[in-house]
Amino acid sequence: MVSIHNISFPITNSLPIEVSQMHKFSQSLCDNNGINETIIPHNFAYTEWTVIDTKFEPNSLQHRETVFTIGNGYLGTRGSFEEGYPGAMPATLINGIYDDVPMVYTELVNCPDWLPIVISIEGERFRLDRGEILNYQQQLDVHKGLLSRYIHWRSQAGHTVKIYFERFASLAQQHLTAIRCQILSVDFTGEIEIQSSINGYPDNQGVCHWEWLDQGEKEDIIWLNTSTRHTNLELAIATQLQINNTENTEIQIKGCQGYPTVAASMYIQPGKIITLDKIVTIFTSRETATPVKAAKDKLANVSDYLTLRSAHIEAWAQVWQNNDIIIEGDLIAQIAVRYNIFQAIIAAPQQDDRVSIPAKSLSGFSYRGHIFWDTEIFLLPLFTFTQPKLARNLLNYRYHTLAEARHKALDFGYEGAMFAWESATTGEEVSPRWVPLADGSKELVRIWCGDIELHITSDIAYGVWQYWQATGDDDWMSNYGAELILDTAVFWGCRVEWYPEKNRYEIRDVIGPDEYHDHVNNNAFTNQMVKWHLETAIIVLNWLRQNYPHRANELETQLKITPKRLDIWADISKNLWISQDLQTGLIEQFEGFFNLQDINLHDYEPRQKSMQSILGIAKANQRQVLKQPDVLMLLFLLREKYTKQVIETNWNYYTPRTDHTYGSSLGPSIHAILACEIDKLTAAYEHFMRAAMVDLEDVRGNADEGIHAASTGGIWQAVIFGFAGLQITETGPILNPHLPPSWNRLQFKIQWRDRWYEFDLKLNPAE
Amino acid sequence: MVSIHNISFPITNSLPIEVSQMHKFSQSLCDNNGINETIIPHNFAYTEWTVIDTKFEPNSLQHRETVFTIGNGYLGTRGSFEEGYPGAMPATLINGIYDDVPMVYTELVNCPDWLPIVISIEGERFRLDRGEILNYQQQLDVHKGLLSRYIHWRSQAGHTVKIYFERFASLAQQHLTAIRCQILSVDFTGEIEIQSSINGYPDNQGVCHWEWLDQGEKEDIIWLNTSTRHTNLELAIATQLQINNTENTEIQIKGCQGYPTVAASMYIQPGKIITLDKIVTIFTSRETATPVKAAKDKLANVSDYLTLRSAHIEAWAQVWQNNDIIIEGDLIAQIAVRYNIFQAIIAAPQQDDRVSIPAKSLSGFSYRGHIFWDTEIFLLPLFTFTQPKLARNLLNYRYHTLAEARHKALDFGYEGAMFAWESATTGEEVSPRWVPLADGSKELVRIWCGDIELHITSDIAYGVWQYWQATGDDDWMSNYGAELILDTAVFWGCRVEWYPEKNRYEIRDVIGPDEYHDHVNNNAFTNQMVKWHLETAIIVLNWLRQNYPHRANELETQLKITPKRLDIWADISKNLWISQDLQTGLIEQFEGFFNLQDINLHDYEPRQKSMQSILGIAKANQRQVLKQPDVLMLLFLLREKYTKQVIETNWNYYTPRTDHTYGSSLGPSIHAILACEIDKLTAAYEHFMRAAMVDLEDVRGNADEGIHAASTGGIWQAVIFGFAGLQITETGPILNPHLPPSWNRLQFKIQWRDRWYEFDLKLNPAE
Repeated sequence: MVSIHNISFPITNSLPIEVSQMHKFSQSLCDNNGINETIIPHNFAYTEWTVIDTKFEPNSLQHRETVFTIGNGYLGTRGSFEEGYPGAMPATLINGIYDDVPMVYTELVNCPDWLPIVISIEGERFRLDRGEILNYQQQLDVHKGLLSRYIHWRSQAGHTVKIYFERFASLAQQHLTAIRCQILSVDFTGEIEIQSSINGYPDNQGVCHWEWLDQGEKEDIIWLNTSTRHTNLELAIATQLQINNTENTEIQIKGCQGYPTVAASMYIQPGKIITLDKIVTIFTSRETATPVKAAKDKLANVSDYLTLRSAHIEAWAQVWQNNDIIIEGDLIAQIAVRYNIFQAIIAAPQQDDRVSIPAKSLSGFSYRGHIFWDTEIFLLPLFTFTQPKLARNLLNYRYHTLAEARHKALDFGYEGAMFAWESATTGEEVSPRWVPLADGSKELVRIWCGDIELHITSDIAYGVWQYWQATGDDDWMSNYGAELILDTAVFWGCRVEWYPEKNRYEIRDVIGPDEYHDHVNNNAFTNQMVKWHLETAIIVLNWLRQNYPHRANELETQLKITPKRLDIWADISKNLWISQDLQTGLIEQFEGFFNLQDINLHDYEPRQKSMQSILGIAKANQRQVLKQPDVLMLLFLLREKYTKQVIETNWNYYTPRTDHTYGSSLGPSIHAILACEIDKLTAAYEHFMRAAMVDLEDVRGNADEGIHAASTGGIWQAVIFGFAGLQITETGPILNPHLPPSWNRLQFKIQWRDRWYEFDLKLNPAE
Repeated sequence: MVSIHNISFPITNSLPIEVSQMHKFSQSLCDNNGINETIIPHNFAYTEWTVIDTKFEPNSLQHRETVFTIGNGYLGTRGSFEEGYPGAMPATLINGIYDDVPMVYTELVNCPDWLPIVISIEGERFRLDRGEILNYQQQLDVHKGLLSRYIHWRSQAGHTVKIYFERFASLAQQHLTAIRCQILSVDFTGEIEIQSSINGYPDNQGVCHWEWLDQGEKEDIIWLNTSTRHTNLELAIATQLQINNTENTEIQIKGCQGYPTVAASMYIQPGKIITLDKIVTIFTSRETATPVKAAKDKLANVSDYLTLRSAHIEAWAQVWQNNDIIIEGDLIAQIAVRYNIFQAIIAAPQQDDRVSIPAKSLSGFSYRGHIFWDTEIFLLPLFTFTQPKLARNLLNYRYHTLAEARHKALDFGYEGAMFAWESATTGEEVSPRWVPLADGSKELVRIWCGDIELHITSDIAYGVWQYWQATGDDDWMSNYGAELILDTAVFWGCRVEWYPEKNRYEIRDVIGPDEYHDHVNNNAFTNQMVKWHLETAIIVLNWLRQNYPHRANELETQLKITPKRLDIWADISKNLWISQDLQTGLIEQFEGFFNLQDINLHDYEPRQKSMQSILGIAKANQRQVLKQPDVLMLLFLLREKYTKQVIETNWNYYTPRTDHTYGSSLGPSIHAILACEIDKLTAAYEHFMRAAMVDLEDVRGNADEGIHAASTGGIWQAVIFGFAGLQITETGPILNPHLPPSWNRLQFKIQWRDRWYEFDLKLNPAE
């Protein structure tokens, strides 16, 4: 049972918490969807637009910090407390700000922290690990993009206060963030001091990346200028503390090195409210040559908190106009879908096409801010069909990293472009090669993804093709997209091997999407995607020749696309081997998979670890156990090529062999979609909820490390391609819906070739 | 040409710089020793007791920081500037404060920085990277243990000031450090603000180890309490800013999180001097359960700066009473020897026998504060013969880590105690297993020292034996030393292998002191030391049986020393094979060394890299090139076993094949000693100077990483065992001197069996 506190806090300026809309999560869960409660613990209360934490849980602090991440595509900030807490992991990550680090080469840098607000009550510091918490509520309103927190607290000395924090990262102005802090004295008369700081000493789990350059102050404004230690990216952050009741207030600047602070002290008595607004501006040398000036100038010209807040809320309202998905009859699905869309949107660069979306978005340190296929295959469709400008930004990132993809191909002895499995600033391969063995020994294990997980190169081509098909953006396709598809095809033409004795092409020594198996030959996913890729490359070139002959000529010369090469592409796309039973349609994940020892995953239940952790790397490699659905993924991506019967056959074979719970978080949404296609609605909903709650309810136990960004996009696809059954026909989008029984209504919009299509499915409205 | 500025700074309280004693380094160098000037660049000016930097060189900032390290055995602090500088590497290392770190397991932690003093002149910050330096001098007085700095500086706004800093880490009170700061206005009238801080955000080259716990302030005192993140060691540091001229002074506390600061602002006019004293106390949970209370209490009871300073100087005067070595006729040798003794003493734990001396003392991050054989073989003799109490502390550290040495032996399948090649808190093996290849590729190379560089185990036994012989400390020997020698002998008894077909014992697959060659068989150094070790173990056991029969019995039972085991030890010490030409006495470094490809090191000159860097690891392994003199090291340690002719033969063979310049810094002092024994005085002096100036003149180009601690002890041995020719006979110490021609006098003391022996060699005093 989660109890919701009805906090009647006398916040001025109409910031009431919408208690009336609240529902109890546990009740909703049982009422609405019948999901096994043990899978999804009850951490939060939910309304249609809000996630509400009603009880301070220090033991899952870092999970909460992830869930309450806010952002605006430029930066993301975890939901850490303004006043700090022991064991907290605060982080503000700005997309594109990477710095060098051993073993994993580069990582997204934890930037100077704009949150710190320390409140001292008669010299006693407000901190939740001391004193007594009488009431507590933290909530994220994803409609407004506001994170707020109420605390009713009594200090060790017995002074009682109510404190309200609210913060946002402006969607209207990407370089601006703000916090409002309100303090009500319940029973205390005396001095309160509020210190508002910039913490110039953030770290990435023990690694610090910043070098102090300069700092300064002017009246109530303080600023800090720092530089990354290795990549020499400059950052400037400025903040002003606006105090609404200035009588009796003494302002003091405390310019400690690297930790500029402005302090306000004032007297308070019972019933009185103090309101302070911390306005923050942030710029880096990625946007301007003079970040300090930019931050100071912007701060000098901002309006007050409430005006900034209104503009921010209005920007979100605009987004939700097109991006909202309405689900009626299933509150949990409703808020979960909106929450995942919110997390996807705040991770997407709005004004920058030289960055992409990291695997953990801008919300945590895991995967070091590196870019994977997660972007093109899982996240991109959401943007392609709702915010194509953002989709183009993401694809342009790949275009800008072509030079390094060509280097990588050359390094491995091939022509064309071979994209990095893990990518960051330049596109150079940044997959770690060695990682510590998880068994506690002191040995390292060699990770081969950066060498042989090759499918990323076709995944990017797929994203390009899908974007072009959905948008009809011929201009972009001719200038950028075609080059991406063609130069990666050049790579495949070199990489594929002809085996005359077998009279077929093969691709040996790869890792497919299922990373439990490495160094495999003829991975079906990889081979079929390459067939598709080379077919598509020929189509794209022919289209280019017809419509942009000059550009076609240019690319043929530049990429050395000779007639002979085109013949080989055509031949490969016909004769690249895939192991499939022609009768049943069952596809073998890779050559020899069916000879591996079979496994019954039920024998290992209950478990709290991945099958790879349980079996060890070597044994998992020798078993028919999957980290994620390799073949099913293929059936989803190229779904027009496969019959329902083939999908069903493969589903039935691979689903029981997949580590759904602790394998890859990418899998469940794909399983949900395919389950819809073969009318397995109960299973579809189960997989859907496993994906939808992965962060909110910490289904996998690793949400503390950051948002599962791919899953946020996967959820969107599960709703649109799965439950709604969106299909693109020659005349446009149509639906083939398979709604879960509890859903009374599903409403959403997509954009296709410059037109918006609004779908509103109302099922049995009268019953 | 180094020019010495005669700074006439009106420091009060008699702190004049002793300009009259100064000599120019370049002149002294040419006059006195004829060393090739290209080997030793001219960085500093020297007097008999001081090292003086006369010109600010931002390009060698970190080298200067190492050279000007101060300390007191409890902590060491690099000579970084109070006001900071871009690219500086400030560090305060407290012995025993280790924290976890990836790849190298554990490292000595950079502790909260007690140095920061920021001076603002009318809002303009004093910083040497801005404005104009009109005069500059930094000097370390090793007699008094004082580091001072004068700067005559004009700000960008045109305000001119003279600033004097002086600091010390009290040798009289190990938890106390202090800084005096004096400011004279030359032409400026207006406000000066001085911020004195504790920086709670230090890092180890990008790795931060501290978590903030608490901080506070009371009047002009501020304190900070932090904890290491993984090992949970608590540290408290408190500081008070004492201002001598309190009229017009406004004191402000700036309690920024993790960076507590006290600021004093005052008005100044031309000719006026401001004097501020920053007194600091530091405690950790290694010494007290309540470090905050300890730091605050101690600070509450300290006297003023000059009194504390006097006590500190007096403590150093006491040390120099016994530890000084007087060299007349060679100023550079004089100051270099004193400087090296100073650096050795400030690294040695005075009141703690659960820590030892890290490879880079407490002065830098290289080798992560790990403990090697450097302590027992290079540093220990200095302490054994001059401060036996400190020597005992160092050996007790090994005694306290016996449990982990036994674990290591067990892990490798042996009995007894097998000491870690690299050791830290517990004695667990902390040698890194994998390190990045230096060639810029992304690959790692496996380092085998922690597995097979076994000689450390006998090196420790050697240190025990030498300490016992020199001190006659039978009590300690029976309680601690004997167990160390015997249980390590048990290990060797298991590790040595019998080859019946060869009728001999062998030790295969080891690394000797010369680490250019790994996985070698029958390394002469290792095998001969093991022979000595097992012989010695039998002697020790017999002594114990005669003098401490109860203890002998106890150890025989505990360590399972059976008659059979003793027979094997005796047999091994007779039949363990060493490859030596019986006619010439030439010892083969290891089996097969003479078959390796020979090399002429002159072919590679001039060079600025080690031969291993030039050849690569594999090729160096296949050549007759040495990182350090493996066989010669043996001849030095067991010098009573070898004739002058054998030494000469081996010297002649190995010296031209040794990488003296960029191989191991441990080698030159040993070469110097052996050169004395065979009357090669020119060579002896050359090797001696290469060791003596390794840090002062950055002979190897890596002094920025920290003091070469082993070399500081090696220098002492080179003077005492080499030039003075100290030999211990049955009746006591005698000398067999071989003084360099320029030395008119060599005076020193050693302690032998509780008696002090003073030697005063005056050569040709009248000529």
